Amino acid sequence: MNPPIAAPALYGPVREDLARVEETLRSVRPAEFPALALILEHVLGAGGKRIRPAIALLAGRFNRYDLDLLVPLAASIELLHSATLVHDDVIDVAPTRRGRATANSLIDNAATVMVGDYMFAHAAELVARTGNVEVIRLFARTLMAMATGELHQDMSAYAYGQSTLEYFNRIAGKTASLFATAAEGGAKVAEVGPEAVEALRRYGENLGMAFQIVDDILDFAGDSEVMGKPAGSDLMQGTLTLPSLLLIERYPNNNPVRRYFSGRQRAENLRRCLEMIRDSDILDESFRVAFDFRDRALDALTALPGGEAKDALAEVAHWVTERRS
Amino acid sequence: MNPPIAAPALYGPVREDLARVEETLRSVRPAEFPALALILEHVLGAGGKRIRPAIALLAGRFNRYDLDLLVPLAASIELLHSATLVHDDVIDVAPTRRGRATANSLIDNAATVMVGDYMFAHAAELVARTGNVEVIRLFARTLMAMATGELHQDMSAYAYGQSTLEYFNRIAGKTASLFATAAEGGAKVAEVGPEAVEALRRYGENLGMAFQIVDDILDFAGDSEVMGKPAGSDLMQGTLTLPSLLLIERYPNNNPVRRYFSGRQRAENLRRCLEMIRDSDILDESFRVAFDFRDRALDALTALPGGEAKDALAEVAHWVTERRS
Repeated sequence: MNPPIAAPALYGPVREDLARVEETLRSVRPAEFPALALILEHVLGAGGKRIRPAIALLAGRFNRYDLDLLVPLAASIELLHSATLVHDDVIDVAPTRRGRATANSLIDNAATVMVGDYMFAHAAELVARTGNVEVIRLFARTLMAMATGELHQDMSAYAYGQSTLEYFNRIAGKTASLFATAAEGGAKVAEVGPEAVEALRRYGENLGMAFQIVDDILDFAGDSEVMGKPAGSDLMQGTLTLPSLLLIERYPNNNPVRRYFSGRQRAENLRRCLEMIRDSDILDESFRVAFDFRDRALDALTALPGGEAKDALAEVAHWVTERRS
Repeated sequence: MNPPIAAPALYGPVREDLARVEETLRSVRPAEFPALALILEHVLGAGGKRIRPAIALLAGRFNRYDLDLLVPLAASIELLHSATLVHDDVIDVAPTRRGRATANSLIDNAATVMVGDYMFAHAAELVARTGNVEVIRLFARTLMAMATGELHQDMSAYAYGQSTLEYFNRIAGKTASLFATAAEGGAKVAEVGPEAVEALRRYGENLGMAFQIVDDILDFAGDSEVMGKPAGSDLMQGTLTLPSLLLIERYPNNNPVRRYFSGRQRAENLRRCLEMIRDSDILDESFRVAFDFRDRALDALTALPGGEAKDALAEVAHWVTERRS
């Protein structure tokens, strides 16, 4: 059994309630199928920060905070997130994630796909427990946006001429959509008024953008031991993110990304990419873009009534851009 | 564009309405993402018989036949089915299905997983349009049963000591659960009374069992050109189905399946398996098992009021066990 995960102190007023989300996530493991239960324990107990469930619960604090509805919603969002990570591992054939073996390194590709599908099914079952058809449809559209974002990323792998706008669209689908749905879903389940729903959605969306940009920065700047993957792993998979796109913008005619993508002296050119990005102010500029999205998230909060929940959401936004892993 | 698919004449009273299901399936292709639209056209226009949507519509005939609710349900069931086929192709690395190239032979594994996820998302969105939370939960639990059935199949590949009971459990999850949900879902959306719902569910479940057993027989007996895959392809992937399980039952001590699974003289032993199954009465016995499930499906129908819909469901049951591809 995994020990219950300590939620960051910044989740304030919902910190204790996240234990119920953990409990729901544990209940997903089928007793009658031990092999599957073991994989799910591994995948769902992997020390995630549970930021999406925390946002869903915090959004629910703005009106009718009913944990019988909010806990299934929060758990369903974490499951949806984890299911896409499992499917991502099929894609990337990534041997480790967060420093732990991925599902895919324990079982074959075929089973990994099915484990992800099983998790999607459970996520759908959990969100249906809210009894809120609007939230269920929101959930379905979010999965569509996420799959489309991932597909765009996959189909544009090693494609050189991408714009930062395309990058923003991709991460809006792949990441920000689920943060937005965590906030909007929590608000709707709690029957928060339409203006506050809109504000929370806008908070979630911008926070998700900031979160993904910081993730993409840390892929270049982070300590590979803390991150559990080698520096530059996105680029190694042919994925252009903000730092590499900024590098291309600065050196449009001749740069190591282009040379790397064309397949010449790959190791040497990858090393050169990392070096040029780290030695320049590209990462600072990337952080400025992330701060900009964070500020838009904070700005959205101004429409909401003050209190513990609002303070916690603001703290989460600061933490997202300040974290180093 | 694909020509509209001619539904078998036996779908009688809902035959015309299946055109609306086709239309809904076409609407799933996103205009703003042509590459994805093309893959979906390929996957969803692949000449399927639309038997599951037909059953959903026919079940709806027993009370309030509201196409605005039944068409999204029927389309969602076909999408769910097609999505699992797409994910199966990742698993089996199958180059063709029904004689056509699979999604996976056009795009890579990574994108294939995401296309399937996109289809699941759309299926969830469509089923949510029924506004019926009970049907939505049924749908989620069905996906769980399907994924679990597939996982059991995958994890037991090349495992010799399986029983026919394990086989029945596997195909109940993998195939019969969706047939049952097509019938039960259609009935519930039409607000059919509880006894008739139960009868329709039982019809669907038994029909699905018969359908899968016939599929597994045809894998040995069918014309590989009509089937679009080589004879014995299940066995080639290490999957034991009813005919090979019966062969093992008859020759417990020494048989070519055991020798094939142990990896000795594979081509020779596979040929020998096919020969022994075809030359014996094993396929006849397998058909008798399928007929038995068909008869249970027909028996379930006796609880329903007579009429065109009931006649059509009976005809479908006969067709399922009489088809040769």
